[in-house]
Amino acid sequence: MTTLDPVAATCPAPLAEAERVLLGHGSGGQLSADLLRDVIIPALGPAAPAGALQDAALVEVGGLELVLSTDSFVVSPAFFPGGDIGSLAVHGTINDVAMRGAEPLGLSLALVVEEGYELADLRRVTGSVGRAAAAAGVPVVTGDTKVVGRGAADGIFITTTGLGRRLPGAAVGAECGRPGDIVLLSGPIGLHGTTIMSVREGLGFDSDIASDSQPLHRLVRAMIAAGGADVHVLRDPTRGGVASALTELAAASGVGVELAETALPVPPTVAAACDILGLDALHVANEGCLVAFVTPAAAGAVLAAMRALPEGSAAVRVGHVVAEHPGRVVMRTALGARRIVDMLIGEQLPRIC
Amino acid sequence: MTTLDPVAATCPAPLAEAERVLLGHGSGGQLSADLLRDVIIPALGPAAPAGALQDAALVEVGGLELVLSTDSFVVSPAFFPGGDIGSLAVHGTINDVAMRGAEPLGLSLALVVEEGYELADLRRVTGSVGRAAAAAGVPVVTGDTKVVGRGAADGIFITTTGLGRRLPGAAVGAECGRPGDIVLLSGPIGLHGTTIMSVREGLGFDSDIASDSQPLHRLVRAMIAAGGADVHVLRDPTRGGVASALTELAAASGVGVELAETALPVPPTVAAACDILGLDALHVANEGCLVAFVTPAAAGAVLAAMRALPEGSAAVRVGHVVAEHPGRVVMRTALGARRIVDMLIGEQLPRIC
Repeated sequence: MTTLDPVAATCPAPLAEAERVLLGHGSGGQLSADLLRDVIIPALGPAAPAGALQDAALVEVGGLELVLSTDSFVVSPAFFPGGDIGSLAVHGTINDVAMRGAEPLGLSLALVVEEGYELADLRRVTGSVGRAAAAAGVPVVTGDTKVVGRGAADGIFITTTGLGRRLPGAAVGAECGRPGDIVLLSGPIGLHGTTIMSVREGLGFDSDIASDSQPLHRLVRAMIAAGGADVHVLRDPTRGGVASALTELAAASGVGVELAETALPVPPTVAAACDILGLDALHVANEGCLVAFVTPAAAGAVLAAMRALPEGSAAVRVGHVVAEHPGRVVMRTALGARRIVDMLIGEQLPRIC
Repeated sequence: MTTLDPVAATCPAPLAEAERVLLGHGSGGQLSADLLRDVIIPALGPAAPAGALQDAALVEVGGLELVLSTDSFVVSPAFFPGGDIGSLAVHGTINDVAMRGAEPLGLSLALVVEEGYELADLRRVTGSVGRAAAAAGVPVVTGDTKVVGRGAADGIFITTTGLGRRLPGAAVGAECGRPGDIVLLSGPIGLHGTTIMSVREGLGFDSDIASDSQPLHRLVRAMIAAGGADVHVLRDPTRGGVASALTELAAASGVGVELAETALPVPPTVAAACDILGLDALHVANEGCLVAFVTPAAAGAVLAAMRALPEGSAAVRVGHVVAEHPGRVVMRTALGARRIVDMLIGEQLPRIC
């Protein structure tokens, strides 16, 4: 690239130049956003309503506020400390539904399986789906199975879709953040991504670390019960990590976010893995925590409600929302400096979920 | 196989023997049913309610009867006469929702794309999704995109999930067939499967033939408006063809089905392709027709309503439901003989949809 234009320099492969799909297009970061904006949304044009293709859609039917969310899971390896592709699919979709302030009611399960895949592994994965769904109290209500020839898929891919109903009193949305809101985080960050990396890359952390994969719908229910419409924004920071999630939310709400580095709960093993790999824990994928923007008046009650549940026992306040630098996340470091937190640009690790 | 037991002889690879997934497990025929019964349903056990994992599930929410259906599409080639993987995914899911007597309200779209896939093809596929959804009046409301490395998938896989609402007066279900019901078929059979085969195998029919892929929700709406609760059963005979669909319906309703061979609308090109390949048109996949069981009192009105729409203009009566030989489909041939129509056992052609 010959230009020094800082905007162009943040995007290593504009879509006009890249004529093929790159791994980074699936990162959940900037390239994913570009693909969505430049290719998928325009193509769906007449069919896609405003705000379509968020993590979950709000659909009004006969006076009911329903939520629909879908996700494909291609994680490699399919089995990892703390879960597998089956439980991850159930948790991930439950969480996407919950982040719209909704109670998940049922899931669909679509499998694409490679010919020759071991039936024992298929039993293990589907058993894990069944246990995760039962534990969450969200039934699998319908499904589909396709088999493709050897070499046409890598083992098994799972697509789960969740149907939910808005919780009474919930009024959350990515665009609902307001200056003054408190930014809450439900638990430690970076566990899922560093676990997958550790297993994949043989870093040797895998006995000390496990994915945080877990369902968060009960946590959301407790938060809405405590804070009602004062809970403005909910998001699970999966691909792209906390940094990408907060940057997207800041942009959607037209606000800035100020983070306090010292408040961020980064477990020592995550910090160690990030050190070795030269990663920022803020960019690492999570599968069992959420960020929330809540009014100052309700933040205390919401935080207390979160801490009363196991999945929110380590919830903390990590920052606040400001009117300045809209669309930007700025972190005050331990040394008192301020740095801009960017979205993940390309691909940190493919097939993280 | 050393046994002559006719039941055992119908299943060439019981699951206990096959320790790996076979292509036939995705056929939509007997092996698919075995996999569902022996592996997937038991694994989902505590999470799967009775009747789960049908093509579409009925979910009651706040007094509303909602329908949820999901399907993964892995068709190869992705582009074929009469459609492509994008339009097929939209039509297939709309049809699965419609077959539960429901009006489709929205779709989710999950893409798994192989690294290196041409952006031009991605634009073509997503454009086709958008046009098909717009033409059907069913918006894509949410989505997901994952990218896997080169060789980890074959181009693009699409999973669509449809949300629908039961039509007023609809009371259809696979188990609702009754002796005396008339069996209606909405149009010619075998077109989708023979088109894909022709393109794949270079049979040279592909200039004369095209997939029947089309949405059938308007046809269903007209049928329910004309017949109400007298329309007992609806099914789109996709993988496994008309034979597998009718056999499943006969088993689910505990009835027999009698078909008249001379009434079956098999286009000449389909018949010719089936002759060459040694196939039975009754086993070939369809993506744009449906079978229905309707009371004799309502059959005339429903047939007239079907014929008033382009997608039902060639609708015919092909047989009737009997109390005898429950679970069996028997065809009276052109020569007056009777033969049992079986489900497709293994795999006729992988990746047909």
